[in-house]
Amino acid sequence: MTTPLITMLSDFGLKDPYVAEMKAVMLSISPNARIVDISHQIEKFNVRMGAFVLASAAPYFPEGTIHVAVVDPGVGTERRALLVQTKRAVYIGPDNGVLMLAANKDRISRVHTLTNPKFMLPKVSSTFHGRDIFAPVAAYLANGSLPKHFGPEIRNYIVPSFARPELQVQSLVGEVLYIDDFGNVITNVTNADLRKIGIREGKSLFIRIGRKSHHVNMGIAYGEAAPKSVLALIGSHGFLEIAVNQGSASERFKVNIGEAVIIESTR
Amino acid sequence: MTTPLITMLSDFGLKDPYVAEMKAVMLSISPNARIVDISHQIEKFNVRMGAFVLASAAPYFPEGTIHVAVVDPGVGTERRALLVQTKRAVYIGPDNGVLMLAANKDRISRVHTLTNPKFMLPKVSSTFHGRDIFAPVAAYLANGSLPKHFGPEIRNYIVPSFARPELQVQSLVGEVLYIDDFGNVITNVTNADLRKIGIREGKSLFIRIGRKSHHVNMGIAYGEAAPKSVLALIGSHGFLEIAVNQGSASERFKVNIGEAVIIESTR
Amino acid sequence: MTTPLITMLSDFGLKDPYVAEMKAVMLSISPNARIVDISHQIEKFNVRMGAFVLASAAPYFPEGTIHVAVVDPGVGTERRALLVQTKRAVYIGPDNGVLMLAANKDRISRVHTLTNPKFMLPKVSSTFHGRDIFAPVAAYLANGSLPKHFGPEIRNYIVPSFARPELQVQSLVGEVLYIDDFGNVITNVTNADLRKIGIREGKSLFIRIGRKSHHVNMGIAYGEAAPKSVLALIGSHGFLEIAVNQGSASERFKVNIGEAVIIESTR
Repeated sequence: MTTPLITMLSDFGLKDPYVAEMKAVMLSISPNARIVDISHQIEKFNVRMGAFVLASAAPYFPEGTIHVAVVDPGVGTERRALLVQTKRAVYIGPDNGVLMLAANKDRISRVHTLTNPKFMLPKVSSTFHGRDIFAPVAAYLANGSLPKHFGPEIRNYIVPSFARPELQVQSLVGEVLYIDDFGNVITNVTNADLRKIGIREGKSLFIRIGRKSHHVNMGIAYGEAAPKSVLALIGSHGFLEIAVNQGSASERFKVNIGEAVIIESTR
Repeated sequence: MTTPLITMLSDFGLKDPYVAEMKAVMLSISPNARIVDISHQIEKFNVRMGAFVLASAAPYFPEGTIHVAVVDPGVGTERRALLVQTKRAVYIGPDNGVLMLAANKDRISRVHTLTNPKFMLPKVSSTFHGRDIFAPVAAYLANGSLPKHFGPEIRNYIVPSFARPELQVQSLVGEVLYIDDFGNVITNVTNADLRKIGIREGKSLFIRIGRKSHHVNMGIAYGEAAPKSVLALIGSHGFLEIAVNQGSASERFKVNIGEAVIIESTR
Repeated sequence: MTTPLITMLSDFGLKDPYVAEMKAVMLSISPNARIVDISHQIEKFNVRMGAFVLASAAPYFPEGTIHVAVVDPGVGTERRALLVQTKRAVYIGPDNGVLMLAANKDRISRVHTLTNPKFMLPKVSSTFHGRDIFAPVAAYLANGSLPKHFGPEIRNYIVPSFARPELQVQSLVGEVLYIDDFGNVITNVTNADLRKIGIREGKSLFIRIGRKSHHVNMGIAYGEAAPKSVLALIGSHGFLEIAVNQGSASERFKVNIGEAVIIESTR
């Protein structure tokens, strides 16, 4: 029988031994564990970015997948360690919101704190709970241990707030959720939001970033625009993306995560 | 029984959720799939670089391996999606040449376009065929589906042209195919080419890059030259490489991919 | 039955096809091999850094794991290729010390040179023993071949020397062993060393780097210090680390690997 998949997300980067130490711990406890990396290049300490990337990837994994996410500036302090059971997966990591955007998409069933030392390494450091707590917990879960044995249920866990775009007269005030490695600027604006101000595929729109306003065509594929030209589209995350065909929109518009983006219909 | 290996190559980088989303799709369809990354750090939109790296690695994989390559500036436009069956492997990706340097090395048996929606995700985006078409196709193939079921056979696929070096009187005019992470400059000149102008191991040669000419010893191992000294050798790709022992030849010579390199015998 | 784990460590980076070529060779020989990357971002040719990262991660892997490490500036020269059998693992790589910090931790049983061509690729290049010698050796070992068949036993292998801190009157003269991706500065000073000069958790100490002296609190978790404040702690490697909470100590102190660090008690 195949054991559940375990995914990993962190801000560790790939130079250091930390990711491998977590995998080593998991494979020592669950020798047949199948481990898939989501990303280890989350910006250091950027819990919201970790939450966004995890929530983007998690829905594509099979039911029953165990997701371990470690963006953990509070490691070793009073912040709690969590196991979040949802309708289709389990999420393991610190109680700082990194798990909860993904978990909420699935619908949360129960949240446990990780307090049972039986499921931790014998010696728990104060600096690396990824290796000493989260990795062994994931592996014991993959082996069939039940969530309730890991620690008591809680209800007051931290949920990150990602703003919804604000609907104004003929405009939407959104924000930049994420900028991918291509420089595509991913906003929090959905197709349904755009329709409220009358924007559909094939139309054009005004995008205001900083003090400048840009007239941009709405398309469906990057390659529809001429090379190095700007277009907007609903991207693979399901959000309005501002893109430059074969170029970088984030460089073109000098825009950062968290910045406001105002969308106006050109009618 | 072991399922075929699936390899992945892309220009996605490792920060974003895209590579993980493709793996998630593959593992949802083919839970025992064994996936190996070739590279996700192909220069963005650089189809020729993707073709070169894929063609370098593919021959070392076992027969029957399924290679998925996504360097895809034309995603969502009219460019076709392909399944290329060769004598020893299968290649899946866009019809822009990225597959064909590797496939031609193997000898191509048949090329199909991917048009059967049965082997795609239910909702196909216009921006991410890696996840929505190529990944599921690879996984269904790994599960045993036959190439002919994915779509009609075609013959007019795109083949990238990599120049062969030009033989002149006592010299070869080649070009830089690839520069690796060590800064080794890999040309399109083979050992057989060198012999035509009388150059063998242990000899020296003149290399002209840009306007400068360099007298370089021909060796067999980087460590034969003094540290930080230049040497030329037939590298692990089977091509003439210009290298600096424990240093970077591409920095030393300020040379880029595609640049001309003229080789002259020192006789 | 599960085959042994194989780990990989190198200075190859992740752009080039080299890591994939090694995996392809291993999976061709041992189709069920389970391969885990430790790091491929060791600084080029930095044998000591490779040795440190391997020795950090290896103890967390299960008994019987096969570790392949390729930081190999001497490839193709007279430097030997080794198989090191320890009480709990096997290490494969060049005879330049990269294996020996980890192997000595485990206690070495026997060291063999790799000379038997039966366990190499048919054509061995002079530039890429990772692919042509180390990868096939690891795979044949995973398949059950015995160490003694790979080549003769030797005793005069190279062991890297990592300095122990020097105890002076009320001070320790240590050095920087490693700087991780967070900028944490990992020294060669252990808790036992600190106790010799009367420093324990909860105390403060003076750290001299370059010409400057810094008064730093000794803690147990990064989050104990205010954001962007300095603290010292015994980190997950078991060594004294100088850290900045949610910041980079290596940037703050402009310190490099190998530099001296003087620790003084504040009594």
